[in-house]
Amino acid sequence: MIVVPGPSSVDLGKRIAKLISARTVDLDYKNFPDGESYLRLSGSVEGEDIVLVQTTYPQQDKRLVELLLIIDALKDLGARRVRAVVPYMAYARQDTRFREGEAVSIRTLFRLIEAAGADEFYTVDVHKEATLQALGIKARNLLGTEVISEHLMALGLKDPYVLSPDKGAIMIAKRVAERLGAECGNFEKTRDRITGAITVKGEAADVRGRDAVLVDDMISTGGTIANAARILKEWGARRVLAACTHPLLVPGAFERMREAGVDEVLGTDTVSSPVSRISVAPLIAKELR
Amino acid sequence: MIVVPGPSSVDLGKRIAKLISARTVDLDYKNFPDGESYLRLSGSVEGEDIVLVQTTYPQQDKRLVELLLIIDALKDLGARRVRAVVPYMAYARQDTRFREGEAVSIRTLFRLIEAAGADEFYTVDVHKEATLQALGIKARNLLGTEVISEHLMALGLKDPYVLSPDKGAIMIAKRVAERLGAECGNFEKTRDRITGAITVKGEAADVRGRDAVLVDDMISTGGTIANAARILKEWGARRVLAACTHPLLVPGAFERMREAGVDEVLGTDTVSSPVSRISVAPLIAKELR
Repeated sequence: MIVVPGPSSVDLGKRIAKLISARTVDLDYKNFPDGESYLRLSGSVEGEDIVLVQTTYPQQDKRLVELLLIIDALKDLGARRVRAVVPYMAYARQDTRFREGEAVSIRTLFRLIEAAGADEFYTVDVHKEATLQALGIKARNLLGTEVISEHLMALGLKDPYVLSPDKGAIMIAKRVAERLGAECGNFEKTRDRITGAITVKGEAADVRGRDAVLVDDMISTGGTIANAARILKEWGARRVLAACTHPLLVPGAFERMREAGVDEVLGTDTVSSPVSRISVAPLIAKELR
Repeated sequence: MIVVPGPSSVDLGKRIAKLISARTVDLDYKNFPDGESYLRLSGSVEGEDIVLVQTTYPQQDKRLVELLLIIDALKDLGARRVRAVVPYMAYARQDTRFREGEAVSIRTLFRLIEAAGADEFYTVDVHKEATLQALGIKARNLLGTEVISEHLMALGLKDPYVLSPDKGAIMIAKRVAERLGAECGNFEKTRDRITGAITVKGEAADVRGRDAVLVDDMISTGGTIANAARILKEWGARRVLAACTHPLLVPGAFERMREAGVDEVLGTDTVSSPVSRISVAPLIAKELR
């Protein structure tokens, strides 16, 4: 087995390789002056069982095109099997036609990953697991809550209360709450599909003097977390932590959450960020062995 | 027949629609804060014959992903036939494995365009026409030299001498020279595949007091054109014009050419740029009718 760390997941790829005692074949990559990517495998992959690790953030489209180009190149260069590990899968929120005429982007992208030649697909906390059904190949959604829970347990939280900032993350929050042996609740978020405006509301939870942990699959603008954090502080929470699998954290997101009273933001290395202190490498390694 | 102008070719798409007297269905598109594209067709395409116009520069990867998402959405929404018009096709220079291990990017992308559901493919002055063979669907490479020659003829050039700045553009230069009834020559360029350094040399052409016209399929950094222009001015050319189909013109390219003595830069609207004064709309419209 050979691990190929893609341009967007060099560190994570190397970590996974170490855990499964596999060697790596590095990719030479650069950008031409006009913005095109150049990709070249630095060693032979002929007849080999390949694990390609390539996340798709930031620069979703650039990372996706690289992913597709590398998969096809690997097969073309004679790889026996290509397992595509995409720790964060972009466009997963566009999983249905919310309004007539919309592209169902994630379905198209899964079809293209398959068409490019991937034999298996692995991701972590995809927005909705059912979207993987668009793939005709073996597909696995790994649960980031496993490594997040372990990390939270080591923090010595005070009587923690786990909450999801919207309905979409209830399952994730429940899994974390169970591992922590903590209470669990949720807020409700409504998003205007046209203006994008977000409203958050929830039933009062007894968080007075306790550590509230907001858990979500991804944090992008931080707006949903900020709204929930403000409410939790009003309700008397001692500390508010925000933990997620995918810390997309667009510019200003971190500051927005801090200002709303979030004391700590935690994420995994499915996406590189200043808060990516939890590695999903053990999770992925276990699945690949 | 309905024309769908893609986000990267709104003006060109509308121009083509007008020439073939077809109505357009516009695309609503925006970027989410984290960089993902949102795409939605604003009208019905069910049972229709669709011409999708979407170039792939600048932001090659973003434009390519949009192209693939729109093609699939059109088919999914019931379009009877989708003709993908990609005036400038990115990655066309990576058409072979120059070094062991390289991705043959253009081949992969053509396979994906087909996999997404395109029924026909049209482009203008693709880097090498033979690359179109990777497509299993009807594929046409239109000659931008037709509209470029017409434009040049109207300029009243003085005893023009047409030259290609390297061997790759000899055919294009010859076609322009023939239409202008002008002499034709070429420079030779060598590019170091690793460092990217470019050397240009040529046999002395009798350009003294005449208008020299450098013709190429694309101008990216302008380095090749600048090198050739310097030589032409040394040889006594009265004016040096640089004409191309695809004016990619990365930052600094225009200034680089001006400093080397290029008096005028001309390009077509396969790519939007300040020098895109020649439209390929008539060329494409003629082929679609």
